[in-house]
Amino acid sequence: MKQVIGLLGCGTVGGGVDAIAMAREDLTVKKILLLYPQPGTEGRDVYDFAEIENDPEITVVAEAMGGVEPAFTYASRALKAGKHFVTANKALIAAKGAELAKLAVENGVSLRCTAAVGGGIPWLTNLTRCRRLDTIRSVRGIMNGTTNFIMNAMHTQEVSFDDVLKKAQSLGYAEANPSADIDGWDTQRKIILSAGAAFDKFAAEAEVDTFGIRNVTAMDVKAFQSLGYVCKLVAVAKDGGDGLVAYVEPTLLGASELEAAVPSNFNLITYDAEYFGVQSFYGQGAGRFPTAANVVQDILDLADCKPGFYTDKLAPAKVCNDKEAHPYYVRTTLDAWSDKAATKGDGWIITEPIAVSEMHAWAKKAMKDDPALFFAGIQ
Amino acid sequence: MKQVIGLLGCGTVGGGVDAIAMAREDLTVKKILLLYPQPGTEGRDVYDFAEIENDPEITVVAEAMGGVEPAFTYASRALKAGKHFVTANKALIAAKGAELAKLAVENGVSLRCTAAVGGGIPWLTNLTRCRRLDTIRSVRGIMNGTTNFIMNAMHTQEVSFDDVLKKAQSLGYAEANPSADIDGWDTQRKIILSAGAAFDKFAAEAEVDTFGIRNVTAMDVKAFQSLGYVCKLVAVAKDGGDGLVAYVEPTLLGASELEAAVPSNFNLITYDAEYFGVQSFYGQGAGRFPTAANVVQDILDLADCKPGFYTDKLAPAKVCNDKEAHPYYVRTTLDAWSDKAATKGDGWIITEPIAVSEMHAWAKKAMKDDPALFFAGIQ
Repeated sequence: MKQVIGLLGCGTVGGGVDAIAMAREDLTVKKILLLYPQPGTEGRDVYDFAEIENDPEITVVAEAMGGVEPAFTYASRALKAGKHFVTANKALIAAKGAELAKLAVENGVSLRCTAAVGGGIPWLTNLTRCRRLDTIRSVRGIMNGTTNFIMNAMHTQEVSFDDVLKKAQSLGYAEANPSADIDGWDTQRKIILSAGAAFDKFAAEAEVDTFGIRNVTAMDVKAFQSLGYVCKLVAVAKDGGDGLVAYVEPTLLGASELEAAVPSNFNLITYDAEYFGVQSFYGQGAGRFPTAANVVQDILDLADCKPGFYTDKLAPAKVCNDKEAHPYYVRTTLDAWSDKAATKGDGWIITEPIAVSEMHAWAKKAMKDDPALFFAGIQ
Repeated sequence: MKQVIGLLGCGTVGGGVDAIAMAREDLTVKKILLLYPQPGTEGRDVYDFAEIENDPEITVVAEAMGGVEPAFTYASRALKAGKHFVTANKALIAAKGAELAKLAVENGVSLRCTAAVGGGIPWLTNLTRCRRLDTIRSVRGIMNGTTNFIMNAMHTQEVSFDDVLKKAQSLGYAEANPSADIDGWDTQRKIILSAGAAFDKFAAEAEVDTFGIRNVTAMDVKAFQSLGYVCKLVAVAKDGGDGLVAYVEPTLLGASELEAAVPSNFNLITYDAEYFGVQSFYGQGAGRFPTAANVVQDILDLADCKPGFYTDKLAPAKVCNDKEAHPYYVRTTLDAWSDKAATKGDGWIITEPIAVSEMHAWAKKAMKDDPALFFAGIQ
């Protein structure tokens, strides 16, 4: 069956989708929603979403604009018009995934978003495929290329956080405003999407304990190395019974572990399932063609009558990180956790196991008095 | 659509398939071909393949017997009877894959064998999925858990090859006759299956240059470590134009590379594709439930009208490893390669780049005079 696509946006990813589709006989990008005329889109450019919404030939809307609005409005209208919706937009799905999944089911169409987690990695595809016969126990991983690039550079060269961030920006691996990456918000959205696909439980962004790598220093890295650790920004989610365990934090890994070896701006994402055990998926977490190719894979899956990633079982879930505990590396000028210190270093301690929710709540408060503090979980 | 399965063999993997299918409403194992009665199979046990072949209700034959015969005869008869054929049997596919693929196409049914490479890892599934829109440049990886267990132990503990082989045997990670694993024949079959799915080119087993880890010593491992390397048994295949580059050899990897970090008896298998770049798949390469679950995934894919892995484009191809060259670590008591030595150590040398075919041909001959020689590629 030939898929006729309405494309929203024609930037880095959208342009990639168009280029890949152009080379295929089973796909046609019939209309492209733009803000202003763009070379290469002539005859297909439209400036009002209604032209896509009301085109009965268009079976799939592929969104590559980013941001929650107007993407959410267009997604809702597309699904209500009986069109499948494919997106690489993690902000949209993290904010509105449960609503969109419900709309898709109600209208007998599918919502797919492989490219929203892990860019080019077929992560959500494999996760949902695994669930077809298996029970997922946990999902975790390195889901952000920018922070992996930074942490990798700080472990292999003697560079400061600021210098390597500038280098990442000059290479196009980090945004001019790097907060979404280095403060963990990008990763937070990806673990929400992954947990939803793994457990049918959808967390609110504000509830997922999240601490980024903005404060990590070359001295911290020296301390990690002296302890035999490598630090990465890792997201974790587990089915917590009524609720969901879900958090994002810098994590100290044994230097010989697979996650510790993830180079440059790559991602490695893992599930642990009852039959299959631990399986990991590695590749480019971003980039024009890897991401665009995953959007196209979703479209081809729809032509193949594959269902969406989220069913009407997807429901909002409370995050409960109070029973999930492990030791932490903590560097602060404040007098804190001394009753829980198992090891003391030069300005830092390793604690006894502390609940994730407790550590994140403490850090949020303590940042007011010690804005440079840093912590990392040890799992 | 409910799939009705005829199962051939009910050992470790077959029993796992039966257990998983038993728990599902969309699958029924109607008949099980056995050599002798087995508990749990009562009422379904048959001792003549014709009972499965001639049962019009059975849509899929799942084979978990191992070996080329009688598996090949049964596979041919199943396909001719218009039944899909699913197998975890790499020996069968490596020997008869091209014939079976042709038979499947002729009879309008599918041949799938995800579990034959990487056990529980969805490797062939993802490889063929990637090919749906991308061009594979190369495939490679650690495809044998036994040899990874041995190499990993030799790098992390001071143990001899013989001691760690015995340990692997006691843990059930290695067979009583370990040759298929440690001499690379198991890996050879897996790279043939992978290259066929990646490039439509099917190599003959005898043509794939293969050298195992039987001769590696604790002294070799010390030398690798002094050079900053980790040694793994790696298989490589690339589309070589008219022919196919395909070989299996111990390979020295930089200690910080992802493949170097693969622990215990795990596998890590990788393709490099034009759009997607490098993507790797990690997990259990063997084991009852991971492998059985992948057999069941193939069966569910058939219910989903997925095609087989191999099309009628699959054709025998010559292996041509004469243009593929890299440096080698060589330890021998013979006077060899001295004109190509770039670095000399205590009983070993690192060579200038040497063609893969040349090194393997030399070793085959030289083993007669120095049966303990060892070499490893450096890529």
